[in-house]
Amino acid sequence: MRGVVEGVVLKNLTAAFVPFVHDALFSVKQEEVDVRMVDPANVCLIMATIPKEAFETFDYDKDEVFGLDIERVHEILKLAKKKDLVSIKTEDSLIKFKLSNLEYSLTKIDPSAVRKIPKVPELKLNAKVVLNAMLLKTALKSAGKIAESVEFLTDESGFYVRAEGETDSITMHLGELDPIDFNREAATSRYSLEYLTSALKCVSPGDIATVRFGTNMPVDLTLDVAEGKLRVKYIIAPRIEAF
Amino acid sequence: MRGVVEGVVLKNLTAAFVPFVHDALFSVKQEEVDVRMVDPANVCLIMATIPKEAFETFDYDKDEVFGLDIERVHEILKLAKKKDLVSIKTEDSLIKFKLSNLEYSLTKIDPSAVRKIPKVPELKLNAKVVLNAMLLKTALKSAGKIAESVEFLTDESGFYVRAEGETDSITMHLGELDPIDFNREAATSRYSLEYLTSALKCVSPGDIATVRFGTNMPVDLTLDVAEGKLRVKYIIAPRIEAF
Amino acid sequence: MRGVVEGVVLKNLTAAFVPFVHDALFSVKQEEVDVRMVDPANVCLIMATIPKEAFETFDYDKDEVFGLDIERVHEILKLAKKKDLVSIKTEDSLIKFKLSNLEYSLTKIDPSAVRKIPKVPELKLNAKVVLNAMLLKTALKSAGKIAESVEFLTDESGFYVRAEGETDSITMHLGELDPIDFNREAATSRYSLEYLTSALKCVSPGDIATVRFGTNMPVDLTLDVAEGKLRVKYIIAPRIEAF
Repeated sequence: MRGVVEGVVLKNLTAAFVPFVHDALFSVKQEEVDVRMVDPANVCLIMATIPKEAFETFDYDKDEVFGLDIERVHEILKLAKKKDLVSIKTEDSLIKFKLSNLEYSLTKIDPSAVRKIPKVPELKLNAKVVLNAMLLKTALKSAGKIAESVEFLTDESGFYVRAEGETDSITMHLGELDPIDFNREAATSRYSLEYLTSALKCVSPGDIATVRFGTNMPVDLTLDVAEGKLRVKYIIAPRIEAF
Repeated sequence: MRGVVEGVVLKNLTAAFVPFVHDALFSVKQEEVDVRMVDPANVCLIMATIPKEAFETFDYDKDEVFGLDIERVHEILKLAKKKDLVSIKTEDSLIKFKLSNLEYSLTKIDPSAVRKIPKVPELKLNAKVVLNAMLLKTALKSAGKIAESVEFLTDESGFYVRAEGETDSITMHLGELDPIDFNREAATSRYSLEYLTSALKCVSPGDIATVRFGTNMPVDLTLDVAEGKLRVKYIIAPRIEAF
Repeated sequence: MRGVVEGVVLKNLTAAFVPFVHDALFSVKQEEVDVRMVDPANVCLIMATIPKEAFETFDYDKDEVFGLDIERVHEILKLAKKKDLVSIKTEDSLIKFKLSNLEYSLTKIDPSAVRKIPKVPELKLNAKVVLNAMLLKTALKSAGKIAESVEFLTDESGFYVRAEGETDSITMHLGELDPIDFNREAATSRYSLEYLTSALKCVSPGDIATVRFGTNMPVDLTLDVAEGKLRVKYIIAPRIEAF
């Protein structure tokens, strides 16, 4: 495969994975490049897709599956500006990135040597909120001031993010006006703040988050970033309180 | 009590205390809200006042005295912008802060459970300098490059801040032109740089500092911040050299 | 000696030394001020020159040689802005720096008490590249993402900086268009990235670097900084691989 793509797409792609994992599994297909991984604790599944249309040029010759040390790639891509064009070329055992006067070669990892990714579960998640990703990021940051987990709650009146400390509590109403879309289904579930804030590290102003969850069910958090050129889906297990 | 006040007033209030203490004692009165605490080493007394006029709205119903975990409040107020309006409401055992779409509740602390604040001593401090608070902050930062304590010195020619290292010394003349007011009384005294720089953490450009001190006496450092809507007074004990 | 010089000249002078050494040896001469030191591992020789013309005023009375704690001076000069004028005055056992309302005095160190500086070796270095110092700084930063040493390589096609990690490699072509001057001589040598990046800490946009090196020979890296008012020369030993 050979392709040329804006720096911002690859920078966001690697930023989506590095808070969770070292390596990721890349699949080059005729219509897109898929990247997947599960975190070591099996709490979070990460699936990213760059469609063919997001590339400036995309020369596909055959299906390819390989692992990459995505942390290394992330460090190198920090050297690219958002609008810089980055060339990618896969070879037998290497992948090459070219940005301005710099050429970077990295050895592929055999797919059998990366963590096995579980099958994506079929989930019935009744509540769905589509909102500004930065609004959610800010609410999670606020919750992080006092707690390590957060409650997502929807009812007729809107979407709430809540956290409780030992002597204090905080409630953010991501409510009436803010959501772009909200199906008004009621649900309540608790998630790890560390996972959620890591997942939102790759978002910038203008990005859209789609949150789907059900009571004591996982959350499916789908982020459309880099002007829609990259979609990242996180499926994060709930934190269910012991009784 | 219920009140609405600009974020900048509360942000500066909490910033004035957090370098020194975890908790502070709040007194709601008919004409003002007072906040006081003494640091654990009994070196520094901190007294802040928000007059009724600094509030956009101020509904007083009765005198109240309670402690608050001011560090927690400080963290939450970081989420407010300077010009954001913050609503405050006291309830029986709680205080509630509301800023944009966020509501924060914190349990009050029984006044008997916070550190006992000593009576403010009557001090005869002969030297008085009124100056730009940022000028003093910069001088203290400079002194901090080489020493851990600093000498305040006034004589007819002005106000000097001095520090000495093992092989070097530094003198800042906050002198002829800079002070807004200076009574030209002579005095010399030494103070901990850590205390002084902590005290000046809450100042911004445009704020005014009034420095009153006497030879080997405490310094009374009064800061008028947040466009005069908040007054913070620090009384810091001198460091007297052993012979 | 008495002199007045722009802050930027002294700030860059001290910035050139502090990544390597605590003290440096100053020589006041009729036509210039020289500063020299060798790092503790004897890998890098640092020689800086401020010509008389770089001073606003320069009153020479006699040759002087003394050591200074250049880290202390560096900390104090951080308080000066680039365009601030700094006055320097040497006295019998002191040097005094004056910047705006601040006076700083530092005890000189007896030259016999600082590290002995070896004689500058006569070096025949065949390759010479003159280029934008920031371009080199960026290439070294990129190389630092994956390795601890870097290869300098010249051939007919230009100047290359290369680094290798365990599973990856990076090549920067500082090539065809970029160099201001290049003698097209071939050479290859390896240097410590820590030394090179430390040496380039004092450069700003617009500064010029002259790189001279030979195969498995030291590199002579000469930097013209502060609008040409300061020249800093580093001679850094190569890292020769064991076989």
